[in-house]
Order: sequence, then C-alpha cells, then structure tokens
Amino acid sequence: MLGVCYYPEHWPRDQWPDDARRMAALGLRYVRIGEFAWSRLEPDPGRYDFEWFDAALATLAAAGLKVVIGTPTATPPKWLIDAHPEILPVDPATGRTRGFGSRRHYDFSSDVYRDAAVKIVTALAERYGAHPGVAGWQTDNELCCHHTTLSASPVARDAFRLWCRDRYGDVAALNHAWGNVFWSMEYRSFDEIELPVGAVTETSPAHRLAWYRFSSDEVVRFHDAQVEVLRRLSPGRFVTHNFIPMDETGIDNHRLARDLDFASYDNYPLGRTDLRMADAAPADFKRFMRTGHPDYSAFYFDQTRGLAPGAFWIMEQQPGPVNWATHNPAPAPGMVRLWTLEAFAHGAGVVSYFRWRQAPFAQEQMHAGLLRPDSSEAAAWPEIEAVVRDLALLDLNATPATRARVALVVDVEAQWLGEIEQQGQSYDYTSILLQHYSALRGIDVDVDFIAPDSDPADYALIVVPALAMPRPGMAERLASGGAIVLFGPRSGAKTPELTYPEGLPPGPLRALLPMRVLSVETLRPGCEDAFAWNGRSYPSGFWRETVEPGDGVETLARYDDGGAALLRRGRVLYLATLSDTAFTTDLLEALCAEAGVATLRLPDDLRLRRRGDLVFALNYGAVPATAPAPEGTTFLIGGREIGARDVAIWRERA
Amino acid sequence: MLGVCYYPEHWPRDQWPDDARRMAALGLRYVRIGEFAWSRLEPDPGRYDFEWFDAALATLAAAGLKVVIGTPTATPPKWLIDAHPEILPVDPATGRTRGFGSRRHYDFSSDVYRDAAVKIVTALAERYGAHPGVAGWQTDNELCCHHTTLSASPVARDAFRLWCRDRYGDVAALNHAWGNVFWSMEYRSFDEIELPVGAVTETSPAHRLAWYRFSSDEVVRFHDAQVEVLRRLSPGRFVTHNFIPMDETGIDNHRLARDLDFASYDNYPLGRTDLRMADAAPADFKRFMRTGHPDYSAFYFDQTRGLAPGAFWIMEQQPGPVNWATHNPAPAPGMVRLWTLEAFAHGAGVVSYFRWRQAPFAQEQMHAGLLRPDSSEAAAWPEIEAVVRDLALLDLNATPATRARVALVVDVEAQWLGEIEQQGQSYDYTSILLQHYSALRGIDVDVDFIAPDSDPADYALIVVPALAMPRPGMAERLASGGAIVLFGPRSGAKTPELTYPEGLPPGPLRALLPMRVLSVETLRPGCEDAFAWNGRSYPSGFWRETVEPGDGVETLARYDDGGAALLRRGRVLYLATLSDTAFTTDLLEALCAEAGVATLRLPDDLRLRRRGDLVFALNYGAVPATAPAPEGTTFLIGGREIGARDVAIWRERA
Amino acid sequence: MLGVCYYPEHWPRDQWPDDARRMAALGLRYVRIGEFAWSRLEPDPGRYDFEWFDAALATLAAAGLKVVIGTPTATPPKWLIDAHPEILPVDPATGRTRGFGSRRHYDFSSDVYRDAAVKIVTALAERYGAHPGVAGWQTDNELCCHHTTLSASPVARDAFRLWCRDRYGDVAALNHAWGNVFWSMEYRSFDEIELPVGAVTETSPAHRLAWYRFSSDEVVRFHDAQVEVLRRLSPGRFVTHNFIPMDETGIDNHRLARDLDFASYDNYPLGRTDLRMADAAPADFKRFMRTGHPDYSAFYFDQTRGLAPGAFWIMEQQPGPVNWATHNPAPAPGMVRLWTLEAFAHGAGVVSYFRWRQAPFAQEQMHAGLLRPDSSEAAAWPEIEAVVRDLALLDLNATPATRARVALVVDVEAQWLGEIEQQGQSYDYTSILLQHYSALRGIDVDVDFIAPDSDPADYALIVVPALAMPRPGMAERLASGGAIVLFGPRSGAKTPELTYPEGLPPGPLRALLPMRVLSVETLRPGCEDAFAWNGRSYPSGFWRETVEPGDGVETLARYDDGGAALLRRGRVLYLATLSDTAFTTDLLEALCAEAGVATLRLPDDLRLRRRGDLVFALNYGAVPATAPAPEGTTFLIGGREIGARDVAIWRERA
Repeated sequence: MLGVCYYPEHWPRDQWPDDARRMAALGLRYVRIGEFAWSRLEPDPGRYDFEWFDAALATLAAAGLKVVIGTPTATPPKWLIDAHPEILPVDPATGRTRGFGSRRHYDFSSDVYRDAAVKIVTALAERYGAHPGVAGWQTDNELCCHHTTLSASPVARDAFRLWCRDRYGDVAALNHAWGNVFWSMEYRSFDEIELPVGAVTETSPAHRLAWYRFSSDEVVRFHDAQVEVLRRLSPGRFVTHNFIPMDETGIDNHRLARDLDFASYDNYPLGRTDLRMADAAPADFKRFMRTGHPDYSAFYFDQTRGLAPGAFWIMEQQPGPVNWATHNPAPAPGMVRLWTLEAFAHGAGVVSYFRWRQAPFAQEQMHAGLLRPDSSEAAAWPEIEAVVRDLALLDLNATPATRARVALVVDVEAQWLGEIEQQGQSYDYTSILLQHYSALRGIDVDVDFIAPDSDPADYALIVVPALAMPRPGMAERLASGGAIVLFGPRSGAKTPELTYPEGLPPGPLRALLPMRVLSVETLRPGCEDAFAWNGRSYPSGFWRETVEPGDGVETLARYDDGGAALLRRGRVLYLATLSDTAFTTDLLEALCAEAGVATLRLPDDLRLRRRGDLVFALNYGAVPATAPAPEGTTFLIGGREIGARDVAIWRERA
Repeated sequence: MLGVCYYPEHWPRDQWPDDARRMAALGLRYVRIGEFAWSRLEPDPGRYDFEWFDAALATLAAAGLKVVIGTPTATPPKWLIDAHPEILPVDPATGRTRGFGSRRHYDFSSDVYRDAAVKIVTALAERYGAHPGVAGWQTDNELCCHHTTLSASPVARDAFRLWCRDRYGDVAALNHAWGNVFWSMEYRSFDEIELPVGAVTETSPAHRLAWYRFSSDEVVRFHDAQVEVLRRLSPGRFVTHNFIPMDETGIDNHRLARDLDFASYDNYPLGRTDLRMADAAPADFKRFMRTGHPDYSAFYFDQTRGLAPGAFWIMEQQPGPVNWATHNPAPAPGMVRLWTLEAFAHGAGVVSYFRWRQAPFAQEQMHAGLLRPDSSEAAAWPEIEAVVRDLALLDLNATPATRARVALVVDVEAQWLGEIEQQGQSYDYTSILLQHYSALRGIDVDVDFIAPDSDPADYALIVVPALAMPRPGMAERLASGGAIVLFGPRSGAKTPELTYPEGLPPGPLRALLPMRVLSVETLRPGCEDAFAWNGRSYPSGFWRETVEPGDGVETLARYDDGGAALLRRGRVLYLATLSDTAFTTDLLEALCAEAGVATLRLPDDLRLRRRGDLVFALNYGAVPATAPAPEGTTFLIGGREIGARDVAIWRERA
Repeated sequence: MLGVCYYPEHWPRDQWPDDARRMAALGLRYVRIGEFAWSRLEPDPGRYDFEWFDAALATLAAAGLKVVIGTPTATPPKWLIDAHPEILPVDPATGRTRGFGSRRHYDFSSDVYRDAAVKIVTALAERYGAHPGVAGWQTDNELCCHHTTLSASPVARDAFRLWCRDRYGDVAALNHAWGNVFWSMEYRSFDEIELPVGAVTETSPAHRLAWYRFSSDEVVRFHDAQVEVLRRLSPGRFVTHNFIPMDETGIDNHRLARDLDFASYDNYPLGRTDLRMADAAPADFKRFMRTGHPDYSAFYFDQTRGLAPGAFWIMEQQPGPVNWATHNPAPAPGMVRLWTLEAFAHGAGVVSYFRWRQAPFAQEQMHAGLLRPDSSEAAAWPEIEAVVRDLALLDLNATPATRARVALVVDVEAQWLGEIEQQGQSYDYTSILLQHYSALRGIDVDVDFIAPDSDPADYALIVVPALAMPRPGMAERLASGGAIVLFGPRSGAKTPELTYPEGLPPGPLRALLPMRVLSVETLRPGCEDAFAWNGRSYPSGFWRETVEPGDGVETLARYDDGGAALLRRGRVLYLATLSDTAFTTDLLEALCAEAGVATLRLPDDLRLRRRGDLVFALNYGAVPATAPAPEGTTFLIGGREIGARDVAIWRERA
C-alpha cells in the first residue's frame, strides 16, 4: 500500500479537501501528518490549539485516508527553549551549544525536555489516541539525525555519571574496567568523571565506548517514554519510528525498536549514493547518479526489516530531486516506481512518499514532492499511478516476506569499535558490512540482517563481518543452528569493556575455532599486500591479522609470507584479513554452494529479490536486461526483457 | 594620474621631505595617508595628537602633492577595545569573539563603535576638511575585508531584531514571510529571534537572507555616518572608498557607493589569480602566475566603474610580490605598467600604488613597495617612469570612459541566493558572472556592469546571468530599452523573501517570456549531460532546469532528452542550464551579431579596451601579439607588434 | 646497551619477578618506570603511596636491572585538576580549554602546576634519589607532545605580559620593536597586551615570535625546576629527557637540554614516515611502509646527539605496529634489529624498547610490545636476541661517536620564521633541513647538527640551510674555523625581532659576503622556474630571491633571466633559491670534494655510518646490497653482501 507525508499547516485550509481527494484518487491510503507542528499545536506554553488538527484529520478521514500522526518532538518551539535553554545539546567537537533555528535542538539527557515531550505526546494521544481516522503513530522524526546522538552538555555529563554509577557500582570497578591506571586517569568518585571530549589527545577507548553506550541508552530512554504513552492512550494503533541509517546515528537500533510494531525507513537513494560515493571518480559515479547504487537502498531495507516483527514501512520515499546532497540530480525516468517496487520486494508493508506537495518556503523548498508548489503533477506522479496498477496485480498482503537462508550479522558495537579505535584510517565498519552485503546480492542471495544475539534458526550460512565484543556463548549460539558461520577479522577482538580478551583475540570465539591473533596491521590504500586462496591471489590491506591456528584448524588461505589468512574448523571459518569485493564474492559463493544456497552471478545493474513466491527483478541499468526466470514463466509484471529502469515480477514454481 | 599610499608615521620625520620630493619627481600626484593611524592621532582617549599629521600634510603639500586622507576606523586602538570590549565582532562559524591584534576588529552593529568612529572622523574633518592640500577622503579601508560583514555578537543580534521589526512590522508577518511554520520555527515576538548561526542543521534560507540583508544595511549605515560628517565638514573634497571584490564582502556595493563621488578598487592581480585558480592544474596556472588572468582585474574595474558617477580610482595597485596569497610570485617585467594602463583603459581616473616604501616591520613586511626598505628603487620603479611617459602622450582627462553597448547585470541577491541555497556544491554565482564576462571580453566586447534596477538606456545587449529575486516590473524595465535580453538559469527563481514565486519560476519574468520551471537538478563536476544548439553539443551540468515553454515561445536548444534548454520570445531569451565558456562565447557572439555589436575572437592573452576614441591593446602573453588595428593606424603608444607584456594604444577613426 | 619501558602498576604484583627475570635473561640492562603513575604514587592530595613503587624497584634491582625513573608530571591526576582547573591549557586555534582525560593537560605557565610538579618530583627524589637501583631520571615525558607548547589561557597571557616587561623594559620599546604603529596596534602598558590569537586576520609576526620565544622559555622554566630538584636530591644519577622532534614541539631544544647529562629520543620510524609522507603516491610510500625512510630516524638521532654532551639514548624504540599513525603496518622482519644498530651507529649509548608488554587496555592497547598481552614473545623478540649477540661482538662503550667533518646548522628560529611568515604555503623549514641532511647522507657523509651559536671547531664544511635572525658576529663565528660555509636562502632575512635588517637581507651576513636581497618570490608546486649551475639546469621554486652581488663576489649560478642564484666570496657561499634534492646533492658533493670530505654515491636504500673506527652499513632495501668496504675487509657483523633489512659492520683501517 502507498502513503504520503502531508503538512496541512503549510497550506490554506480550503486547499485540504482537494488535496485529500487527489490523494485518494491517486490510490494513496496513508497520510502522515503533524511531526513538525508543535508551534501550531501548542502556540504558547500550555495553550493547545487542536482545532485545526481536528479539521485536518476530519478532512483526510472523510476522503477515506488513514492517518499516521508523527509526534512533534523533533522541533521544540522557541518558547520552550527560551524557558529552558539547558535543553539545547552541545557539539562535542567544538563545545559549542547547538541552538534553535532548525530541528533536533534538544539533548536526549534533558529531563526537562523528556518531560515536555511526554506532555505534548500525552496531549496528542489523549485527544487522538482513539480517533477512528488514526491508524498509528510515528515517534519523533529521524531520531539522531544531524549527528545528535552525542552531546557534551553539562546535562549529558551529569546523566553519564549516574549511568556509570549504575553500571559499575563503585568507582574502583570502573577504573579497573577502563584501565584508567594507564595515564593516571583514575577517578576517586563518580562525580569526577568527565565526558571524553576536549582532552589534549586521545581519551581512553573504554571511556568513549561507555559514552557511546550511554548515549544510545539515553535515546532509547527518551523514545521509550513516548512509546509508553502511546501504548497506554492509543490502544490498537501501531507505533513505529522512521529510522535513518545506523551508520549515521550510531545507536543500537535493535534496542530502540524493541517495543515498536514495525520499523520504518526514510529512503533517499540518490542522496545516499551521492554521500557514500563522495570520493568516487566521476565515471564510476555517473552511472548511479540518477538511479542510486543497486545495493544501497536494499542494504537498509533488509536492516530495517530485521528490527521489529511487522512488515516495515518506507515512511519517506524520495520522489524527485532533493536539496541536501552535495549535488542533487533528478531520478532517471522509472526509478521512483522501481524504488517503490524494490521496497515491496524486500518486504515493505507500505511505501509513503515524501512529500505531497513541494513546499514553497523554508529549508526544503528545493525538495521535490508529488505535486509542484503550484499543485501541478510533478515528474513522479505517473510513476505512482503505474505502481498503483502494479500493486493491483499482486497480492502483497497475502505474501509476507519470507526468511532468507543467509544471514548477515550487524553489530553496532563493531561500528563503535571501528570509530573509537580505528587503527587504520581506511577501516570503516559500514563499508565492510556493505561489501559483504553487495557480494551476496551480486550472486543473487537474499539476505536477512540479524543482531549478534539472535536465534540462528535454520539459516544455512551466517556471515559475521566483525563481531567486536562477543559475550560468552554468543558465538556458539550463532553456530548452534548448524549453519556455516564465517567470522571476519576483528571478531572477538575485544572484551565488552574494549580491552584485549584474556589469551588474545578472538577471545571467546576460540572455543569454536582454536587460534590466536598475534598481531594486527593496517595498510594505506594502494599499498596492499596479497594472499592466495583457491589458486588465486587477492589483495589484503585495510586490516591484516597475523594468526596462529590452533589444534584441528585448517588453513585455507595464506599471505604471501606464508602466514595463515583463512582458518576453518568444522563449519566455522575465520578470515584474518579484509580484502576486495572480488574475493568476498568468490568466498561467499563457495560457502553458499557448500551450504546448499543457490547462487547466480548477476549483471552489475540487475538485482533479484523474492517475497514469498514472488520474484522481483529490478533493472537499474540504462539498457535492457534479461530476467533469469525459468523457461515458460508467466510474468505478472513486465516480461523476460526488462527495460531500462524497469521491473519484472513472476511467481516461483514450488 | 598617478598616486601612492604613504605612511609618514612609519618613518622618521626627517625622511619625509625627501620622500615627498622623490614622489613628485617620479610624477605622482596623489598621496593617501592616515588610514591606519588612529593610535597616533588619538594616543589616549580624547587626547588628539595632530601635530605630526599637520607636519606630514605640510611636507607633502609643499612638494606639490595632493593628499587623500583615509579615515582610520579600520583599526580602533586598544584603549577603545578595552573600554568597550563589546565592539569586537563574533565569528559566526565558531561563536568565538574576534579579538584585537590585527585590523577590522569591530562590529558594524555596535553603536558604541559607530559613535567612536564618527568622533574621530569629525575631529579629522574639522581640522583638515578645508586644508588646501587635501583633495579628498577615503572612508575606512576595504570595508568587510577578512569576512567581517557578518557577526554573531549579541550586539548584532539585538540590532537584527530591531531591523526585523522595522521590516516586517509584526512578528506574524515575519513568520509568514520566512515560512517559519515549517519546523516549528515560529516566533511569538521579535525578541525571540536569534541570528541564524550555530543551529543543529540548516537554518531557514529566508532567515539567512534577512541576516545578509541586515548585515549589508549595517555596513551601509556605518559608512553613511562617516560620509555625512565628511560632506558637512569638508565641502568641495571628494569622498570615496576603496572596495575589495563583492564576492568577498557580500554587501550591496551599489547602496554602499550611493553617496560617493567615485568608487575605488584595490587591485592585486597576482593574489586574486592565485586565490581564484587555487584548484587549477599547475600547467594551467603557471602561464598566469606572474601576469594574473587577463580578465580578472578588468572584471573588477568594470564593476567598480559602475558603482558611482565619477571616474573610478585604483586606490592600491600591486607593484611587486605581495604577502597574502598562498604563494607570492613577482610580477613579470612590464606587468606593473600594463596593469596601470589597463586600469586607465577601463576608465580609471587615478592609479595609486601600494605602497611608497616597503615596511620593514609588521604584517606586510614582505609586501613590495615602489621603494625597498632601504629606500632603493624596487623593480616597479622604471615601469612607473614609463607610465608617466605614456600618460604624457595621452590626454585621458579629456577622454572619459564611454558607455559600452553590452551590459552585464550584477545582482548581489543572486550571490546571496547562491550562498544560502547552493543546491549543488559547484554552484558559484561569481564564477557564472565571470564566465559571461570573460566570454564577452574574449570576443572583444566592452562591458558595463549594471545593477538589476538600472536604466537599460541604449544598451544593445543586456546579459543577466541570474536575476535571483526580481521585483515586479524589474525584468520589463531591463527589456524596455529594446535591447536583446538574455536571462540565465535561476532568474526569477525566488520572491524577495526567498520563497517560490506564485505559479513557479521564473515568476515575474513570465510576463516577458511565458514559461514555467518545473524542476531543477544539479550534477557533479565530470558528470555533465549535454544539450544541442545550432547543431553543436555542449555540456549541461552545475544547474539544469526542466522548463515548459509557454505560448509564443520558441525553443532554440534542447537537452538530449528533448527538453527545452533555451527559450526565446521576441528579444528576450531564457537559458535553462549552465554550460561551459565555449557555449557562452558562441551564444553571446551570435546575440552580439544580431544586436549589431561588433565582435572579434581574440587570442587568449590579448585584450582590447576602448576609452573614448582610444583603443588599448594589452598583451598578457609571453610572446608578441599583433594589434588588430586598421591598416595605416598611427600608434600613440607601441606599434602593431605588441611585445610580451606590452601595450599598444591608438585612436579609433570616427 | 639495551633497555625497556615497564609499567609495574599495570600488572599484578606477582607477575613482576618473572618479568624482571625475563628482562635480564634477554640481555636488557635498563628499565624505565613511573612516568605516568602519579595517580598511584599520590592517590589523594598529599597522601603518597610509595610502597608498591618500593617493591617494584626492589624486584627490578634484584634481577640486576638498573632503573630510570620518569617523573610523572605529564599526567596530573584528576583531583589536582579539579582543585585547580586553571592548570588546564587553552587551545589557541579554538579558544577551548583542553581538558582532562588523556595526558599533557597542563599549562607550562601555571605556577600552581609548576609547584605541584616540583612537589611530586621532590617527594620522589627524596625517596629514591640515592636508591642503589636507580641509575637516573627522565623528566616528564615527551614535553610539548600533542602541540602543547602554545596555550591561550589567561594564565599564559599574564605570564606573557611579565615576560614582555622583562624583555623590553618599557612598552614604547616593545611597540617600536614589533612595529605596532603599523595597524594602530600600539599598547599603552604591558597590561594591554594580548596573546596573538583569535584576531580578525594575521597578527604581527613580531608579536607571534615573542609568543613563541616566551612559550619555549616557559617550557624550559618548567623543566629546569625539575632538573634542579633532581640534581640536588639525587647526586650521581643522570638526568635526561625523551625528546620528540623539534619540528613538532617548536621549542629551543638546545636550551631545554642545557642541564641534561644526555638527551634521549623516542624513535618510531614507521609512524614518522607515515606522517611525513602523508601526501606521497602509494607507490613511492609503499617501499618505506614497513622500514621507514632510511634518513628519517637518523635525522633525529643526529639532532639528539648534538643536544647534550653524553651519548644519547633511544628511550623508546618501536618494536612492532603502533596505534597512532594514519595506518599502522608491522615492521618488516629485521627492521627492529636494524633500527637498533642504526641508533648505535649514530652514537647511542642505550636503546630502550617501548614497551615490555603490550597493554591490554586503554589508549595504547594496539601498540606492540616485546611481549604480547598474554606474555608470549612478540615478533621483535628474536631480533632483540640477535642485537644482544651483535653487541657482544662490538665494544661500543670504548667507541664513542666521533665528531663529523660536516655540520648542519639547525636553527629553531628559522623554523619559527617559517611558521610565522610562511610567504609561500610550500615553505617548510624542516623539509629544507631534511633535504640537506638526506643529500649528505646519500653521498655517505656523516653529519653533526649544531646550533647557530656553536663553535665551528674543525668542521670542513658547514651547511646552513637557513639562519633566520643571526645575531651580530654569529655568521663570522661559523666561518672562523676555516670551513666552507654554505648559507641557504632566507639566511639573515630578519633581525631578532622579525623585522627587515638595516640595509636589506642578509643583514649581518653581508660582512662575510657583500650582497643584497632585493626581492623574494614563492612559486606554487609544479610552477617552478629554472637556474643553471655547472652546465646543468635545476628547478627553482618554493623560495627565490633576487640578489645583487657586492664587491668581490662571484656568481656561480644564474636564473634563466640572468639573475644571480648562487654567490661566493672566499669560502662563504650564499644560495638564493630552494631547489630539489638532485641539486642539493650535486652542490654538496662539489663542496665536500673541495673541503676534502670523501663522498660516495650510495644506493637509495643503503646508508653508512661511522662510530669511531666502526663502519655500520644498513640495508633498508628488500634486496641484498653490497657493502662498500675495502677489499680484504674482515666483517665483525655480516659480510660484503648485506641481506635485505640486514646490517654489516667492519672496522676502518687507520
């Protein structure tokens, strides 16, 4: 089903009925409203104005549309900030207070703000919690966007001290856990603890890890307070949140999503591709400039699906050029439809476009909508119409996403470790995760993302690019389902307090695969060395471990100096080095073959995704591609020759 | 006529008479003094010491030199700062107060400082306003240099609130004009308004535009206060200001210059070329390293000429290596003379060298003068002597600059828009303006710069690279003189409050040329697409608009996807995309031909400029060039073969 | 002799005896301890805990090891900072206080901190000054590391005012010396003086020079206070300090080392090479990635040797991958031994490895030790064993470093000038010094570094890449020994107050070599011009002076425009331009020949160094090299074919 984001407060009231009518006529079903409207809902402290919101809801409901209300807590109004300036967060990099004038100007640790947020959410939920037009709630908006997870405010520091006291009990335990003896960094009481910012040189990595954990916990605490209100006052309505990529927020999304009905994602393929390929050569970039990279949206779709039980939503889907990337091209014709169907292929329940009509004012006036500011239909409009026709040919509600046979373990602690202790400037956890994902997708393997403490169930292959700080039993549990399990370098590198594990890395993984990591080196880009596997040579660079295989361990690949680069015992493998996509693809292809997971080398621009018995083939390319469907396949949508930026869908025969 | 900048306070008094004698003997006529001498003119609060200044003036006058007094307000003394530290400006990027220790350490919004400035100017004007040796006044020095236009001080914030109150009357009007509803940015009173700095993410563009406008107004207000004093107390003397490039100051120079007799410019061709070509390949840069780019000085000469009625001055002319560029080469032999004659070619009344003698101390001790610190003649000296001989052969006072047939519209609001809402990182208004200027100069077209609200008079062609926020009737007025008018992309893009115009861009321009801009995209360098015009293909990249031609509108060029790229109705054209210099040259050449403006493709290093009936040919190249003079021409200076870095001048036959 | 750095406070007490036993068994003789242990030595204000330190000392002494105690003043504990937050330094670039949480969080100008430092040093010296196991003391640790020389704190400002008063006596003298009249920067009293930070644009170079001098003096004052205590309370023990490169600290190392018995250096060849070659092409860098550049360690060895009379120590020697460079490769096999022998070749008395065992926690847990965290022997262990065997074959104590025949003058003021008045962004004093050093080393010339005011003694050739602000008689003194003296460009450029010298540069050098520097230019990389010497053409770029030879001066090289580029009178030369390594090598080779200093063009990867009659040949390369030893040489270590990353040593025949 489809939806759209709408801001009645931006438009004259007499325009609302026509907007609602056109939404419904287009085939949209859901409308998200309200998430930035605090200054209209509570124009003065304690004085609510719900009249206009009542009217907007009534207008939308009258047109048969279901409403998702966004809690407006991403944009506290000026009167609240002026009354309590300590709500404002402080930039850890500069020590400067981050002021009013845009959005997200609040500190997750501010009790004052959390109370104010709960109050406005309560007021909304009391009034609309049982409203028949309300389908559900979105909490806040893109939590932690604009790098707001971390704050260096006094409020955050005080909360951190309490968090430390809760976690460590007494300060001697904290000193020991963090290794504070190292540079006389020992504290005599929790009240002496500072945030790890603004020091002369590098602060203790354990200290920073604690701060990251604390900050993630604070976001969860802030968020949970809203969820609690909504659950209590709006029974029977769903609660979701629109996530942005974890690599940007640095929080534990699995914990944040714990009490949600489903997770949502805001999908901007062109902007994401622009940012991620910032340093790409123009020729490499240009081919994806107006389509996005074929694996980038799906990478986040699959992560989002894994966060909560219900079918995920795309709460915001890019419908045209946006305003916030370094350059902002228009999507190639067909791509808005393709991205939409791609989301459904990966299990989406609803795709909701951002936004109904391009705003003629303020920060996002150069961000396209389904309508132009003059209410004429923008470029994406006929593509949405085509999607509506497509959806009529499918029965997606009866076809939920099925569990994949291959799982990728996504580990927020590995991301934290990579940021806190980079060791080589080229080390980037998200790039590593994405490399593995893209390799699997390039050989037509559907992927589930799972958390490190997940049930391995019946996965045939579990790929763990890095499991930074495994708890006891965690690795064994992953292997307990009988899957082949591949651990990448830096797995088991640290204890949960970011220290060396007893007996050297990979610490607790040694129970599965006896070995020791003796030494680590990181090499500059362009200065890689090589290793050999299966008769081929591959580069080894950004991370290289010297490892010593233990008893019963087989060495499958060796560095040029003879050292082991890939170890195996039973169904568990340990890769000691980062390499390139070619190697990752070759290795994962071999492991899939062994695990009985079918693979198929796909052209660069073609991606397949199964949902139940439906097979979606998505052609990102500028020239037609051939759908690898069995002979005699009847296509539900499209045909064997898939046009440029087009889609084919057929049913797998049982 | 020639002049020089001199600092008597830097030298022993017994050196002054000899300096004055040598100036006069060299042929200099004007001497600028005093503009940084506050700490000597008022050594303690309220205690003036004019004795030395009297003596300096007397010495110079005795040698027959005319004096220009610079008001010393660019360098408030330490005692004033210590008494009123709130004078200091605050860096908007960091929130840090910009302290004492160099120059320009004052906030344009400080009433305390404006009063202090008026007081010292009044004291000077009372004493010297009628002095027979004083020819005129320079206000302050290079206003807004070192990025001082914008300040984030409390003083500036308070003044901004008042400015907002004046402009918008009530806060609801402001909220509406800025679209503050967007992210709950609404204010309940003017006292809630902050400066648009330090927010979590992007602030409202309308808010920033207001701040830019306010800041420009504050500079004007500060400056006007001095002009008023000088007009009152120094009748019959000229008042000017030495401008630096608008692209660096971001203020409305036309308003700033409104009450000046003429505008002045400080011309440093090598430094400017070094900065503007910062990213050029060494091979591309090296040919201009010791000459400057042939169009960069002229670009600012022609802008400066357009600011005020009188013949503009070069108040500071680079005479040798300077100290402030990333690297500081020496001018190629001949260039100081060439630059000087080039200024006269473009209409200069006086060229004044900076500085008489290289200072042996402080910040600019590596900045060359006409003399070295030991009073020996520096490299430029014989070139000045040559200029004096040249000028004797011309009668420039009888040959004022004549109006060009082609006008370029320079629009400070387009610069502001480009900075506030860049949309593509490659969008740079000054580069666009310069591209058009350079294209015209390369086909030997003399150019006037005019403001958007100027009288189109009898121009044959008016080129408007971008007219950001046209007021009603503004475009019609430009077209009213019958010129061909070319509007570039982003013209009519916004209302004066930086919102989308009713009925889509180009807003009010649609009265001239019916069309709509449906969508905008910006592409990364190296990722351009193409469009075709006149059978040739050209790149389209940094800014591309999808446009819909209206009734009676002809499409002259099309993108590769068939969309219109260049529209025309009658004598008005609208170009929907930025392209390269080759296209700009080809298009402007065709329009000149149609408009009856003669063109001539010049070699890269040769530039021509007419002043009255004089034709100046300037050879920036390292090898001789041929002057494109009619057969039988008698040369006033030089000859048909123009040597490397040499000049030829002849009279056009009527 | 060999040593190691050890942190008993990091390990359980029952591990100490085994550690000590293994150290001694390996052949180590010295152990440095204590330099970060303040929070354990004084856990609460005034409450000392020496018991554990007593025990550690006893354990080490019992194993026959000699202890070097590091004073723990690099890491003041939190209680001290909380009691006196004004101890914290302020970052001049941002104005932000640099907080607790790492190390070096103190301001050298803080009297409170200096008193506290003296107190803890006194307590240590009183207790251990006469301890039989204590061989000597290391003051603090890597003074000024992490760019802590300069602070913008109020404490520093107040101290600077006093320093100025001491230096200039009255404020008029200061105003005159600094040229404060220039931009009305004059002060009326010393209390008006600010630090030269945070101004709108460039502050006066003389002001900054004074601040640099003051800051260097403050470091010396802080350091001298400790030395005084140690001399008084620990007679018969040596006092040293472990320096990091002067180019990073910006202090006058000769003054700092004045009262030391010998200087020490912390040698991290891979990290240093990574940083210095940050912009190198990967292919150029990769060959040095695991060896370091053959001249970089030696460059600092030779500088360190020149600081104090005794044989210098390597207090910290890299034994494996470190954690702080942009990427951190492992040393190539053999390199730890090679680096160690290289230090001895250059005159080291002791090489001490950092650290005994890799710490499993805190900031440096990825920094290798001789042991891994699990106490197993790390990669360097067998190389240390080999070094022990090597040393047994030599009698280094009987073979002190001998004076070289060629001296390089290292001038901290030239470094300051290069930073304060860069004039061309490519100007870097350390690169220039290193270029000369590397040229000499490449033609097999041993080098001494001397200070500008050193005794020229019997050097045959003295190379002065830049003598920024020579005092009267300084140049004459360098030439007084009869050496050939080569001055590079920018020598004599300034007076000691950073102003132009009377009669133009090279100021007082003109007494030796009559000439004048008329003009200076700096060119962008890739835009060099040329000059010719000895029939060959060489590039001239980053610094080019136009010079006028005086009476009796010969012009040996000329720019392409005919100007003089290399001047000579008698045995004194003045080079007016920077050039490339090829020219520097050719010129120095010719001067060596004239001076009777034997030279030999070495392969890029081979370096030779003499110590007494021992010749060390060090092969940094990946392939064998041939030792250029006379026929019939008997090798003490290795042989004529020197393996990859191997060493040969033989005795020179008299």
